[in-house]
Amino acid sequence: MSQKPRLKAGILGATGSVGQKLIRLLDRHPWFEITALAASARSAGLPYHKAAHWLEPTSIPEAIRDIEVKTPDDDLDCDFLFSALDSSTAREVEPSLARAGFPVISNASAFRMDPAVPLLVPDINPSHAELVCNQPDFAPGFIATNPNCATAGLVATLKPLDVAFGIEAIEVTTLQAVSGAGYPGVSALDIMGNIIPNIPGEEEKLEEEPKKILGRLENSAITPNVFPVSAQVTRVPTVDGHLLCVSVSLRRRADISEVRQVLTDYRGELTHDELPSAPSHPLQVLNGEVGPQPRLHADAGGGMTVTVGRLRPCRVLDFRYVALVHNTIRGAAGAAILNAELLASRGLLSHRSQAPQGSTLCEPEYQRACI
Amino acid sequence: MSQKPRLKAGILGATGSVGQKLIRLLDRHPWFEITALAASARSAGLPYHKAAHWLEPTSIPEAIRDIEVKTPDDDLDCDFLFSALDSSTAREVEPSLARAGFPVISNASAFRMDPAVPLLVPDINPSHAELVCNQPDFAPGFIATNPNCATAGLVATLKPLDVAFGIEAIEVTTLQAVSGAGYPGVSALDIMGNIIPNIPGEEEKLEEEPKKILGRLENSAITPNVFPVSAQVTRVPTVDGHLLCVSVSLRRRADISEVRQVLTDYRGELTHDELPSAPSHPLQVLNGEVGPQPRLHADAGGGMTVTVGRLRPCRVLDFRYVALVHNTIRGAAGAAILNAELLASRGLLSHRSQAPQGSTLCEPEYQRACI
Amino acid sequence: MSQKPRLKAGILGATGSVGQKLIRLLDRHPWFEITALAASARSAGLPYHKAAHWLEPTSIPEAIRDIEVKTPDDDLDCDFLFSALDSSTAREVEPSLARAGFPVISNASAFRMDPAVPLLVPDINPSHAELVCNQPDFAPGFIATNPNCATAGLVATLKPLDVAFGIEAIEVTTLQAVSGAGYPGVSALDIMGNIIPNIPGEEEKLEEEPKKILGRLENSAITPNVFPVSAQVTRVPTVDGHLLCVSVSLRRRADISEVRQVLTDYRGELTHDELPSAPSHPLQVLNGEVGPQPRLHADAGGGMTVTVGRLRPCRVLDFRYVALVHNTIRGAAGAAILNAELLASRGLLSHRSQAPQGSTLCEPEYQRACI
Amino acid sequence: MSQKPRLKAGILGATGSVGQKLIRLLDRHPWFEITALAASARSAGLPYHKAAHWLEPTSIPEAIRDIEVKTPDDDLDCDFLFSALDSSTAREVEPSLARAGFPVISNASAFRMDPAVPLLVPDINPSHAELVCNQPDFAPGFIATNPNCATAGLVATLKPLDVAFGIEAIEVTTLQAVSGAGYPGVSALDIMGNIIPNIPGEEEKLEEEPKKILGRLENSAITPNVFPVSAQVTRVPTVDGHLLCVSVSLRRRADISEVRQVLTDYRGELTHDELPSAPSHPLQVLNGEVGPQPRLHADAGGGMTVTVGRLRPCRVLDFRYVALVHNTIRGAAGAAILNAELLASRGLLSHRSQAPQGSTLCEPEYQRACI
Repeated sequence: MSQKPRLKAGILGATGSVGQKLIRLLDRHPWFEITALAASARSAGLPYHKAAHWLEPTSIPEAIRDIEVKTPDDDLDCDFLFSALDSSTAREVEPSLARAGFPVISNASAFRMDPAVPLLVPDINPSHAELVCNQPDFAPGFIATNPNCATAGLVATLKPLDVAFGIEAIEVTTLQAVSGAGYPGVSALDIMGNIIPNIPGEEEKLEEEPKKILGRLENSAITPNVFPVSAQVTRVPTVDGHLLCVSVSLRRRADISEVRQVLTDYRGELTHDELPSAPSHPLQVLNGEVGPQPRLHADAGGGMTVTVGRLRPCRVLDFRYVALVHNTIRGAAGAAILNAELLASRGLLSHRSQAPQGSTLCEPEYQRACI
Repeated sequence: MSQKPRLKAGILGATGSVGQKLIRLLDRHPWFEITALAASARSAGLPYHKAAHWLEPTSIPEAIRDIEVKTPDDDLDCDFLFSALDSSTAREVEPSLARAGFPVISNASAFRMDPAVPLLVPDINPSHAELVCNQPDFAPGFIATNPNCATAGLVATLKPLDVAFGIEAIEVTTLQAVSGAGYPGVSALDIMGNIIPNIPGEEEKLEEEPKKILGRLENSAITPNVFPVSAQVTRVPTVDGHLLCVSVSLRRRADISEVRQVLTDYRGELTHDELPSAPSHPLQVLNGEVGPQPRLHADAGGGMTVTVGRLRPCRVLDFRYVALVHNTIRGAAGAAILNAELLASRGLLSHRSQAPQGSTLCEPEYQRACI
Repeated sequence: MSQKPRLKAGILGATGSVGQKLIRLLDRHPWFEITALAASARSAGLPYHKAAHWLEPTSIPEAIRDIEVKTPDDDLDCDFLFSALDSSTAREVEPSLARAGFPVISNASAFRMDPAVPLLVPDINPSHAELVCNQPDFAPGFIATNPNCATAGLVATLKPLDVAFGIEAIEVTTLQAVSGAGYPGVSALDIMGNIIPNIPGEEEKLEEEPKKILGRLENSAITPNVFPVSAQVTRVPTVDGHLLCVSVSLRRRADISEVRQVLTDYRGELTHDELPSAPSHPLQVLNGEVGPQPRLHADAGGGMTVTVGRLRPCRVLDFRYVALVHNTIRGAAGAAILNAELLASRGLLSHRSQAPQGSTLCEPEYQRACI
Repeated sequence: MSQKPRLKAGILGATGSVGQKLIRLLDRHPWFEITALAASARSAGLPYHKAAHWLEPTSIPEAIRDIEVKTPDDDLDCDFLFSALDSSTAREVEPSLARAGFPVISNASAFRMDPAVPLLVPDINPSHAELVCNQPDFAPGFIATNPNCATAGLVATLKPLDVAFGIEAIEVTTLQAVSGAGYPGVSALDIMGNIIPNIPGEEEKLEEEPKKILGRLENSAITPNVFPVSAQVTRVPTVDGHLLCVSVSLRRRADISEVRQVLTDYRGELTHDELPSAPSHPLQVLNGEVGPQPRLHADAGGGMTVTVGRLRPCRVLDFRYVALVHNTIRGAAGAAILNAELLASRGLLSHRSQAPQGSTLCEPEYQRACI
């Protein structure tokens, strides 16, 4: 892919916490530059630094500070869009912007389970990207989604196990950080020194999304995997990093050393060289008996590496382990960026001025990239 | 039981956090009064208020402040002993004090799995108390133990299910508070905004103790229950209250409303009237979808009631729920006190001056109480 | 005062965190019973347990659960009102309800600095209660207020010093708990492992309110005290209890032992016997060098005792010390209840049916109580 | 200074938290390479990765993992030493190693107030470095120290004010992070959701060290500044970053805009180009009313920039502001490294093989650098 000039990216939901993370991670990105920011009517018309309650530990990038915030209804000067919208807004806004011609790379849950929309993790199921070429409801643009933040951690560990042994069943209990709820999100009075043993809607996502992600692409459609997932989620007083305590049953009998080897050797379907945000290791098996820990390991691989520890036999299912995912990077903003990179590398994102008028993005020349 | 005069209680490990909790909970106890405090040589000779780094939110009871701390080797003026020793010290000290004639009501793990020692929860397995009458290794005294703090929560929920349906298998992930590690215990640098996905030795206890507690007493011996337990423990930044995320398989098919009814109706083998520290409800099923929570529910029933919420079907095993136990009350100090009350109510604790010289506590008159 | 029948109390802002605390503290109150609950239109018509996101560690009192929540505009069946409204709502609602005949015992800041309204702390300035008899703007009812939560802690320590030595100047830095911001209040993302060195409007209150509270009542008007207060407030990750680090200059030269004696001996203008919620000690000087601490000492005296420690000479002003106040009890709900008790004990609250139609509460018979 | 080959640095107290921070910050340092690690006898003989309970969020640098840990008594192969020892050990070990010929760049408090030892902050008092040339007690090596972690933040703000207006008096209250206590340091049970209003010895350091740092060098001796400092320290539940709430009286009358300008314009006595670890701005005045905050601003300038906010007039002294310092970087490890860089740039550190046998480090050629 030619890296010059960079593709122009817009961000929907730019003032929220995932929007902010997108801005920070895209700062000096080799392929993309941010040219449009959209948020709710309340922020519209303000320079970004006045519209956003900035939460990142580094300053707002200079090139972003004074961009005027628009609404999704305004004319957005960009080649494609990242969506960090909440789900209910996404349900309205994303289709209409796709139909207006924009590829929408979404972190929202609204269309993740739509059969026409890929639930995409580049190192796990890059072939699913092909779905974007056939979305009549959203053409001439398209929608591509990344998974729920906790799901993102779970599937990184399931993929190599599924390939090697087949997944039979999963029990998972999560300990999720407050950044997963956005801003203002969780009240301090609710979570300081406390645990909330529920996050509405989250368990359903953890129980359904992995089956689509690890599903089989046949005839341009996904046949979901069939293993049951039983999930209990909790909110805990950590800032970043969702921890997952997993028990797994495998289809094929395996011993612990095989399982460890398979997880250790896993490199995913991508190489670091291919996409700028791909980590050298999508998965890292930790030594020792006290990891992973959110404060120590969430930033592994720039927040894009899922860490795993405490692998051992389980007395009820087959094996137990603990995984950690940086929920706002690997589980949100970083995931969306990696999806955009995958799509760009396959020719599925392009400069708007170069796209044939009225065509869907995937006709003639684009179709080739989908194969 | 005659409540006058009160039995004289000594505390081993009196300066530690469980020792402190025992002191607070025994303040104005109707049956017991504290007359002896023992700790390590470092504290010996000091008045208690100088020896202890007091952590309870109420002041040291006046009657306790100036008691001189002794060592376990000193002459301890009391009728029986609570042991809040760490496990390795308990292994040495408890047998020798039992052999010196003291009933030892222990919170330590050292002898929990000893076949001759009851692992006692008065509302669950009061009949196991009988074991104290036949401990040749520890006579003329005896040792009685309460479970690990997380186990205490788990078994409170398992007992009614086992009676009604039979337990087939258990998957449990715990989120444990820092008070479970004693003082100074966990370093703030390790746990603030963090999770440690391991506590050495804890998973083994959760996997073994429930089977003994729910075991069958036959011919003065316990036949452990056989269901497998698979446990993952974590330390989280909460102060008091261990949360347990449980999946259970039952032997007999049950629907969710039956399970809810069985948990709701459970009152245990004791009534509140019988023992002063017994809660009116050993188990309480919460309404709503956001409980139990450590800050809101750990103190239920004065810390002696285990709370349960989020009961629902499980996609892999049969049912899922979340339970909460106050780890230093129901899971430690309160459990030991309730054990002492049970034993006293059955005539197994007595004023030392009244015990026949050289006899074991359980000969002639005591034996009757054991039936 | 006759305790039978109890006065009927209504609560404005009943679903908020201070409203909840009022409900808990008034449970089984000997003089008052809650008969009316008001909140915003969103809650109106619901039974209380459905309208409130209950945050207290004990359950909603049975007598309260099913009371139907009204709005302040509805007909409220009660003899007087507690106001736990936010300041801007209070500014509208409190005067209109006072004019409708209700005594309004308010925790809101709206009228604290109004010259006609007492800023009342029963153990400090009970004589200021007299102001309620002369509020032409609010008659036939009246408004009485308690101070800001941090101010409540500061003045408890200033009063004895002012009486004994005269206050010359105050420097204070506060470390305030999140419960002070109500619910949902502070975002967990803002405060976990963090400090926010500002709370809008709070420093002004700390700098002005103490001068009115320690002011002189002359001819039915308050002449404020004149000492300057310089305040820096911070929000810190604690749940309950505002800590105040104070430096004080005194008008009269004093040595440290005198200052310690004056603080230790202070009992306030009330006795515990007089008012049900008055603590036996409004102020408690701690021994040792590591207190007060929020988790250990905020509940002293049921949350109504301010604790003081670290008293020592200051190298710049005269003395330094640290004080702790339970911000939602002594600094809010408990303060309002104590004010109501003071007013009731002086005959300034009465059964509405017994109040002469159209009269101000303070005419004829009430006036006598004001002397 | 020639950067080839790099000077060989040893670290005393290498396994502690400041030792670990030194190791991380020195990774790929252009002037220094770590060649020796020393710790207590318990760690001696182990490879570093087995001796240290590693707490940094990045892995142990590869070059360090397998260095064998020695004791300070062993033969240490290095040109100079960083000391991250606790104060009591430092009092014994640092002089003996200095007398053995090593320059000791110490973070310990043991010799900070020794008149012969510079209490050095390169951007504030670089001329004080000269003191190392005249330390008969420690020759042929020397000892140079950096200030206490909270002092490091305070003096960064005092220096420009002192130069422009003269400091008359300081009131300071600190909110200090747990990392300041090392590891294991503060017990989680003591600090979670809590504040401890004392840190033994800390207030004395804050009250004395600034006067030496801002003292005048005359005839190779420091005349301390004379302004009084009154300090109240607290430990709060933050991880990194000490917050200081400061009131200052100035000798010369100034208005708020002048004070703001002086703080904003301050660049210190060094340029970023000169020393590799010097931040471009030693001090940064924040806009807005809600900073500085530990989580957002402690890492400013790689942890070497002190941030300031909330500047405003004080009603008792002249001005008030809040400052934040990264306590383990600017306040410890980074400060020591910057000191070493300053000394190296002035020729006061050299390759041991090149130092004349038996000479003090500061004879002939070195003396010139001290002018």
